[in-house]
Amino acid sequence: MTAPHPFAEIWRGPFLESVHSGHAVICDAKGEIVEAWGDPTVTVLPRSSSKMIQALPLLRSGAAKSHGLGTEQLALACASHEGAPIHVEKVGAWMKDLGLSDDAFRCGAQETRDRGLLEAQIRAGESPCQIHNNCSGKHAGFLTLARHLGAGPEYVDPDHPVQRACLDAFEDVTGETSPGFGIDGCSAPNPAASLHGIARAMARFAAAPEDSAEAQLHQAMRLHPELVAGEGRACTELMRATGGKVALKTGAEGFFIAIWPERKIGIALKAACGTTRAAEAAIAALLVRLGALDANHPATLKRINAPIRNWRGTETGILKPAAGLL
Amino acid sequence: MTAPHPFAEIWRGPFLESVHSGHAVICDAKGEIVEAWGDPTVTVLPRSSSKMIQALPLLRSGAAKSHGLGTEQLALACASHEGAPIHVEKVGAWMKDLGLSDDAFRCGAQETRDRGLLEAQIRAGESPCQIHNNCSGKHAGFLTLARHLGAGPEYVDPDHPVQRACLDAFEDVTGETSPGFGIDGCSAPNPAASLHGIARAMARFAAAPEDSAEAQLHQAMRLHPELVAGEGRACTELMRATGGKVALKTGAEGFFIAIWPERKIGIALKAACGTTRAAEAAIAALLVRLGALDANHPATLKRINAPIRNWRGTETGILKPAAGLL
Repeated sequence: MTAPHPFAEIWRGPFLESVHSGHAVICDAKGEIVEAWGDPTVTVLPRSSSKMIQALPLLRSGAAKSHGLGTEQLALACASHEGAPIHVEKVGAWMKDLGLSDDAFRCGAQETRDRGLLEAQIRAGESPCQIHNNCSGKHAGFLTLARHLGAGPEYVDPDHPVQRACLDAFEDVTGETSPGFGIDGCSAPNPAASLHGIARAMARFAAAPEDSAEAQLHQAMRLHPELVAGEGRACTELMRATGGKVALKTGAEGFFIAIWPERKIGIALKAACGTTRAAEAAIAALLVRLGALDANHPATLKRINAPIRNWRGTETGILKPAAGLL
Repeated sequence: MTAPHPFAEIWRGPFLESVHSGHAVICDAKGEIVEAWGDPTVTVLPRSSSKMIQALPLLRSGAAKSHGLGTEQLALACASHEGAPIHVEKVGAWMKDLGLSDDAFRCGAQETRDRGLLEAQIRAGESPCQIHNNCSGKHAGFLTLARHLGAGPEYVDPDHPVQRACLDAFEDVTGETSPGFGIDGCSAPNPAASLHGIARAMARFAAAPEDSAEAQLHQAMRLHPELVAGEGRACTELMRATGGKVALKTGAEGFFIAIWPERKIGIALKAACGTTRAAEAAIAALLVRLGALDANHPATLKRINAPIRNWRGTETGILKPAAGLL
């Protein structure tokens, strides 16, 4: 295996304090590698970066159409949202349309990451529900598909028709037979592939015809960046900073993908240490490299060449992208 | 530079998902390396792992004695506490003894990491103060020393007598001329040294005579593990798990040190990627290796061979120490 390539450096005063490295692949419409750093053959779990793949059966089955899902719901199906009121309300309305309560979810309760809502819940003595889970939009999509297929309630079971359809879609767009899966934070199976396979899948999304399931999903993400993550978050801010040209999605343990339809390009990257700040710096650097993102946009500067400040607001250091990415 | 050595592996299902590496040194009383992983010569900022060094002038100057500081206050001077009521009350009493208010601190306001107190503050509409900063005990020590020296209020200025005394102590115990400093999260200068130098300093603490400043500090830490960090935290739990034999202290960006007086051994380690879970796994593994910690103690198993659980409590993976550390 090729060693991971440097992704980002953390400097404090005159000292290099920490270093991140990882693997990254840029793919074209044919699924060929345009450029790569580290090892493109590394087996990865794309985690939440595969949500748009997991949403494909929702469209391909006809479930989205027959349930009249709009672009907001498609964006939420691909989201790792922060459980802010905007997300909770829209997923809640979707669940109401399905006639389902919070108990139908299988993602588990997660505290909201929206500070205002968190404080309101603490003041009201309320506990977090499954709808606050960052994956509740994906799970509303799973429930919609399960209803459409007439399948049972245990939709995260790897043998459930919903997950079998997700695996089929995953192997289709990655062009690989998945070597297995891990169980994700939200309890759904997360199939593995090579990093090249994930980048290939993202390039297929980028190159898909206008009315395809793939295109409907990345269009929905680019149309509603605030639904895909939330205010202040990397996916939301960087998608906006590209002017909505590029669809972006983070995944746990330092994953990030990009879909750039205009150029029919897909990117997949993984920080070897699993660190979010490294993955965010690397995706921002690669988007700058490709000309999709302005190096001086505030959203870019928050992820690369970002000042590190202490409790008094003093600038104590800087996060820099490693040489060779930009 | 020797490449960092593997520290920890994150497995999810059958897949190795993330890998951490770093540098570690075990030193004896003569300051010689007993065993090392990665590069012992790497220049590091020990961050909060140097708090017991920064507390040396408080004792050596006679300030601690003339202000009647007890073991609780010495432990707090070395602490990165979680701002729980026990920490806030004891640092508050110390500040009251000094006749100083929260405004005298220069560490900056930081939200408490104690969930109960956080919720109480939200319900009461209270904002975090500087006393909730994890470093407020260290800063109460700085203020005590400044008072003793008749020095001014800007005690985090690198040219202030308090910081000059800290640098002198740092160079004394590391046996090195520091190449410079970074500014820490709490605004105090944090001098750099080689990792070997930090391990040498910790071995000197371990080997220091019973009534020395060094011994008084590690005795205070081992006597009051709950004051050094807080319930559930690595320093507190692992110190207790060693039966109070070993003093332990974490530092930001993946630092950890250990002082084992019985064996006159010091350890310093740094996760190259700056990740806390890697540093905690590595220090626990080395303490097991040396026979200071039971591999099957719950506090050990929380840091190495720790199950990773998702929002529904399902075990989805495991954090394992890398081969060669245990």
